[in-house]
Amino acid sequence: MFFASDNGGPAAPGVIEAIARANEGVAMPYGADPIMDRVREKIRELFEAPDAAVYLVATGTAANSISLACLVQPWQTVYCHRHAHIEADECGAPEFYSGGSKLTLIDGADGKIPPEALQKAIFETGAVGVHGVQKGALSLTNATEAGTVYSPQEVAILCGIAKAQGVPTHMDGARFANALVRLGCSPAELTWKAGVDILSFGGTKNGLLGVEAVILFNPDPAWEFELRRKRGGHLFSKHRFLSAQMEAYLADDLWLGLARRANAAADRLSRGILAASGASLTHPVEANSVFAGWPRIGHRKAQEAGAKYYHWPFDQALDGPDDEPISARLVCNWATSDAEIDAFIALIS
Amino acid sequence: MFFASDNGGPAAPGVIEAIARANEGVAMPYGADPIMDRVREKIRELFEAPDAAVYLVATGTAANSISLACLVQPWQTVYCHRHAHIEADECGAPEFYSGGSKLTLIDGADGKIPPEALQKAIFETGAVGVHGVQKGALSLTNATEAGTVYSPQEVAILCGIAKAQGVPTHMDGARFANALVRLGCSPAELTWKAGVDILSFGGTKNGLLGVEAVILFNPDPAWEFELRRKRGGHLFSKHRFLSAQMEAYLADDLWLGLARRANAAADRLSRGILAASGASLTHPVEANSVFAGWPRIGHRKAQEAGAKYYHWPFDQALDGPDDEPISARLVCNWATSDAEIDAFIALIS
Amino acid sequence: MFFASDNGGPAAPGVIEAIARANEGVAMPYGADPIMDRVREKIRELFEAPDAAVYLVATGTAANSISLACLVQPWQTVYCHRHAHIEADECGAPEFYSGGSKLTLIDGADGKIPPEALQKAIFETGAVGVHGVQKGALSLTNATEAGTVYSPQEVAILCGIAKAQGVPTHMDGARFANALVRLGCSPAELTWKAGVDILSFGGTKNGLLGVEAVILFNPDPAWEFELRRKRGGHLFSKHRFLSAQMEAYLADDLWLGLARRANAAADRLSRGILAASGASLTHPVEANSVFAGWPRIGHRKAQEAGAKYYHWPFDQALDGPDDEPISARLVCNWATSDAEIDAFIALIS
Amino acid sequence: MFFASDNGGPAAPGVIEAIARANEGVAMPYGADPIMDRVREKIRELFEAPDAAVYLVATGTAANSISLACLVQPWQTVYCHRHAHIEADECGAPEFYSGGSKLTLIDGADGKIPPEALQKAIFETGAVGVHGVQKGALSLTNATEAGTVYSPQEVAILCGIAKAQGVPTHMDGARFANALVRLGCSPAELTWKAGVDILSFGGTKNGLLGVEAVILFNPDPAWEFELRRKRGGHLFSKHRFLSAQMEAYLADDLWLGLARRANAAADRLSRGILAASGASLTHPVEANSVFAGWPRIGHRKAQEAGAKYYHWPFDQALDGPDDEPISARLVCNWATSDAEIDAFIALIS
Repeated sequence: MFFASDNGGPAAPGVIEAIARANEGVAMPYGADPIMDRVREKIRELFEAPDAAVYLVATGTAANSISLACLVQPWQTVYCHRHAHIEADECGAPEFYSGGSKLTLIDGADGKIPPEALQKAIFETGAVGVHGVQKGALSLTNATEAGTVYSPQEVAILCGIAKAQGVPTHMDGARFANALVRLGCSPAELTWKAGVDILSFGGTKNGLLGVEAVILFNPDPAWEFELRRKRGGHLFSKHRFLSAQMEAYLADDLWLGLARRANAAADRLSRGILAASGASLTHPVEANSVFAGWPRIGHRKAQEAGAKYYHWPFDQALDGPDDEPISARLVCNWATSDAEIDAFIALIS
Repeated sequence: MFFASDNGGPAAPGVIEAIARANEGVAMPYGADPIMDRVREKIRELFEAPDAAVYLVATGTAANSISLACLVQPWQTVYCHRHAHIEADECGAPEFYSGGSKLTLIDGADGKIPPEALQKAIFETGAVGVHGVQKGALSLTNATEAGTVYSPQEVAILCGIAKAQGVPTHMDGARFANALVRLGCSPAELTWKAGVDILSFGGTKNGLLGVEAVILFNPDPAWEFELRRKRGGHLFSKHRFLSAQMEAYLADDLWLGLARRANAAADRLSRGILAASGASLTHPVEANSVFAGWPRIGHRKAQEAGAKYYHWPFDQALDGPDDEPISARLVCNWATSDAEIDAFIALIS
Repeated sequence: MFFASDNGGPAAPGVIEAIARANEGVAMPYGADPIMDRVREKIRELFEAPDAAVYLVATGTAANSISLACLVQPWQTVYCHRHAHIEADECGAPEFYSGGSKLTLIDGADGKIPPEALQKAIFETGAVGVHGVQKGALSLTNATEAGTVYSPQEVAILCGIAKAQGVPTHMDGARFANALVRLGCSPAELTWKAGVDILSFGGTKNGLLGVEAVILFNPDPAWEFELRRKRGGHLFSKHRFLSAQMEAYLADDLWLGLARRANAAADRLSRGILAASGASLTHPVEANSVFAGWPRIGHRKAQEAGAKYYHWPFDQALDGPDDEPISARLVCNWATSDAEIDAFIALIS
Repeated sequence: MFFASDNGGPAAPGVIEAIARANEGVAMPYGADPIMDRVREKIRELFEAPDAAVYLVATGTAANSISLACLVQPWQTVYCHRHAHIEADECGAPEFYSGGSKLTLIDGADGKIPPEALQKAIFETGAVGVHGVQKGALSLTNATEAGTVYSPQEVAILCGIAKAQGVPTHMDGARFANALVRLGCSPAELTWKAGVDILSFGGTKNGLLGVEAVILFNPDPAWEFELRRKRGGHLFSKHRFLSAQMEAYLADDLWLGLARRANAAADRLSRGILAASGASLTHPVEANSVFAGWPRIGHRKAQEAGAKYYHWPFDQALDGPDDEPISARLVCNWATSDAEIDAFIALIS
């Protein structure tokens, strides 16, 4: 009963096998391995983006921060949701990589940036000329930190607002696969066709050991990205082991299958929770996370039985009236089993 | 015939197996996995350093840069050899992580810093008070970039000079195992007993897929290291896959055996080269690299036959008199075979 | 009729004379001039702080940013009001000087941070451990950006909340003199006795050409301040010309007299505005700024007659119904005359 | 007998008067004052550069660092002489402003960069691709730190080498006037006509209180310069007092006259020293600095009589044989009198 995070789950077995297969003889280091050539072509094809620059790094924070640093100057600001990973969970990595840019935090229900709020935030930036920071980049997270998804149309509206004011766009796709399979659209529709310039294309939360691709649909800053990646210590010498993971991930739609399993687990989990007396959802369940509240007594039983997950917000105490609902975040991964979901539901019901 | 770099070689098969074994069920992320607990204890035991703080990152540049950032302020300088990896091969990563510190470059034969030159460099720093940068940290590389090794006594002399002036010390041990097995001393003798405060303990060049340990013998900056690691995007969510590599590396002295194989290959290679007419060594061969010169005709034959290695310095042309010697760097890894060495020797003789 | 900013006003004549007097013969540069010795002692005496470290810089942004950089690490955050100068008007200088720290913005009426909001903001920082930025420093502005003042007791409450959680404190006193004369307390009561660690003690807005003192009541980071000042290009070679300004400023309570004049002008101005039909104050008038609204027709007349000030917020248009009030910020300086105030009032009434 | 530095000297009286004149009524802040309009036009005319962007800052370190930050990326390197002010005397300000770029130090006699050494340094940069820092900017100092001057032809050769490899150019002209009057060429000939992109045009060492102009002959990075200046805390609110200094400096060729006086003083000083037994020059005297050695006994007498100057190098002791020469740096300013020079000469002869 592990719902603390999708990054606690295992890697897909096929990925481990691909690593073992890649371990034959010598290979040119630093991304010059032949597997990377295939990965690059595969991603370009998948995203219908023949000119895209494609790179691999090992963590989502690296993918996001280096990408954003290519889009903003130190004296500019990044527009993002108040709960975005780049704001809340990266210990200031975007500020570090960009040389001290700001993040302009936008509030919105269910983890999403409302168009009018984005419009206002961008418009107001720079109103005092040289005295304030300048318009920088937009960063959207899809699936969001609240377990919801932006549709291609929603992405297009937000990117359109940004682009109309000269603001380039980034998508944090740590859970891109989870969003995509829910929406049923194509990778291109959810990204560059909707106005996304750079995508952090997550793999780690969805079955890899530790690989994220960065896709620059506009390849202009490609060389800058390479230099920033190296300078940040994120260029791997034995790069073939990153390439092999990503190749296996994309082969035979493995990535989509893994995401479907995680999403289905979240669906099952949310249905089960809602069946409990006094339970309700905090956010719609659209990807692999469930945000829900249920009576405190159910939390106590689950945690005594060893269930792992976070109270959300974190400062709700287990002490208190039995029937008062407290809320939590539960994240499923591709390997979350029906059995552990059902066991969990039994405890909280 | 691949001598371009030790990072072109494969991982040790046992390491891949350890990764596969680690892929069971869920594990707490970000270094809270039980394998990391064992790794931490093993390294403390191995280095006779029960209080050391131990962390894993995936690249040598990350290990070096984050370590140095914990030892220097932005307005200080790092003393290192002119050819140190941190100066020549990390695209300014130490400057990036430290917030803009300087590197004070020291010349010395065979990749080593002469004590008197270090003494002078440190002494002169800060002579103009607030107008100049201040004394920062010493960084030694062992084995050096010239394929030589510092003995424990040499390390102690250099660290002693630094410590006497309040300068903390770092060792870039990307090839620490290669130095250690050549010297036959203990890990503690080559590090903290000789005055080293932080060690970048390399694994990637010696048979891992991509893991380096950082050992803070003085654990005072441990929390700072953790924050800098996270902020740099180098804290792995599925950390168990780093832990598993390091555990396998240290088990049954695998790391020492791998280094002995690489060193023995370099010895065989250097003996073969020296037997060729007109050949000579540029540096003593003390680890797994061979720096040597031999007639141009031998280079041509080797390269036509597909041998991979770098001219050193890089700007020597293949065009020119047949018998004029040009020099090169040849690096062996744990998997370099006698057969490819002998084939190479046959070509250049 | 210039109310755009207090920094548009002239310097006090006595300050110019002091500069002329300082221009005799040679003087040791970089703060080693004898005038600076006197300034240091004068400030220590004035603030009853015999151990304070005292430095001069030429701009408020430099004073604030270098001070904050001495109090926060790059991975920490600065707590400040959403409308603080350090957030809104310094183009990211605090982020630049600190190496990329965050600013946590706190809302509050009349430019002031509510204690409970500060308590909450600090308490929540670091809740996700290494994943989020850490507790940094508190920065208060007094007089505030809304023209109000914090009393010594209010400062003490806020600094107490900070200190109880290990958070050091900074006061942006660009208009410190204006606050002080309104409150009638001592400089010490409004600063270190209330828990302030570093004060940016403004002079430029109150009659100097361009000098601000930085007073480190806790002198521990004094040397770091000196290095950061130099590294930021803010250490003046011909420092005596800064020293002379500050000496003249403090002599015979000139600084207090100038602030009293500016405050009295703001009082007269606000009384006049309030007498106009349809006028009201946006914030209490407690220093030298007036935030008020009055009918649009009055704005048109004033601006046609050449009055200079800013609409506040900036995006209110002059086009529109005559009698609809729109709001503005009007700032008086020590040289604002009754005549120009009365002329202005006549136009808007 | 003050020869410690030209920045210990007074300001020219006319400059103080100009400041007093500027102190009339209100003025728009931040460079929007009408005096600045005249300064901008005057500098464009003087330099025959109608499109140049012109800004004022208050220190040479600010002028140099902000200029260089506009020319280099964090992962690039600045080529400069080993003894350049930006390397030796700015506490790492260029690294700070640029976000961590390197400085590549070039040795050369008499403070000058030899063309072939520059060619080699640039050519070698980037030889290891993404692993090393990249080609950045050239920074020349004129007059040099050794008191010599580059001729227009010498500047053109060095800038030509840089430009041919895509490297933009900066001139640190803290003592530009001293070089210019020695050479007898036009400001344009010594700068943009010889390939200089940005000039730090010094005033502080030559009679101002604290003002340097930055002239961007190629105005492309003008807005970036403005933002970096603000973000660095170097945009002055009461800017008119900087403008007034620069206007007075340029009026009636005051700046040239002041530099001629300082140079003449250095000439007189060097002639006097050379007449002493056992004396010799360390560098040719071409601007307002004298680098010379003479017997220790003469140093003792001069210093006992209160003469101020620096041993150069700094670590030569006054204790030792009387007749052994030790060397020093002596800097004259516009107000250095014949009487103090002659008094000094009398002591050391």
